[in-house]
Amino acid sequence: MSENVLKMRSARAADLPAIVAMLADDPIGANREELREPLPDAYLAAFAAISDDSNQMLAVAERDGVVVGTLQLTFLPGLARKGAWRGQIEAVRVAASARGIGLGTSMFNWSIEECRQRGCDLVQLTSDNARPNAHRFYEALGFVASHAGFKLTL
Amino acid sequence: MSENVLKMRSARAADLPAIVAMLADDPIGANREELREPLPDAYLAAFAAISDDSNQMLAVAERDGVVVGTLQLTFLPGLARKGAWRGQIEAVRVAASARGIGLGTSMFNWSIEECRQRGCDLVQLTSDNARPNAHRFYEALGFVASHAGFKLTL
Repeated sequence: MSENVLKMRSARAADLPAIVAMLADDPIGANREELREPLPDAYLAAFAAISDDSNQMLAVAERDGVVVGTLQLTFLPGLARKGAWRGQIEAVRVAASARGIGLGTSMFNWSIEECRQRGCDLVQLTSDNARPNAHRFYEALGFVASHAGFKLTL
Repeated sequence: MSENVLKMRSARAADLPAIVAMLADDPIGANREELREPLPDAYLAAFAAISDDSNQMLAVAERDGVVVGTLQLTFLPGLARKGAWRGQIEAVRVAASARGIGLGTSMFNWSIEECRQRGCDLVQLTSDNARPNAHRFYEALGFVASHAGFKLTL
């Protein structure tokens, strides 16, 4: 994907409707989101919390000025591995109109570079077992599925 | 475990040698740590980064005044699930001298309650596939292994 059409940048409040639309346009995420205009306040509060935390970065991919992808990076300090920082990637989505053209790979290459620049020794993510295609995508990027990801709903 | 012997609290700098000793006393973690006196500066820097981030909590379990367990909680804001906060648990260790008496369960019950009080809708963690006993422990607590955990070393 040529540099002049794809741009990764931090998300702005004005991007929220496009981001939530991508979160909702997903077989697993659809039932969890509430896409309406104006957006429920909970999304604005979450955006403010992310913006207030210097170890969080909500990013969007822009193609010809249109938001077509999103992901969230978290930079995690920790004692393990001699005080290594970890980069964590969550909430990865590509708009339906922009799939199959390598956008995901570009987004990940950018994210991994961001983690490297922040001094991370490791990048981690979890992926729902119901997403076998995503698992193959991560493995092709060099990720190793060494762990099980556990969730407890409160 | 009775309340008067077990106490969970935020870690202090003075706890670092005990925490790193627990991280190192582990079949998977042993080769990753460097336990010497004084501790390598990298651990002190990591402790400072954790302390500076209000969405991080490094905790220890104290029994009769002695540190016998540790874990790290991270509170993650995010847009997904209508702006839900997630609690994440990493680097869980129980000292060899304190295993088999339910300390892990007490530490997790405390951690889950901390996540609840911070308004989290979900608690998440990953566990190395080489730790089948840990997987059974998390399942007994109600966690569901719905995801694969991917890591990429930089």
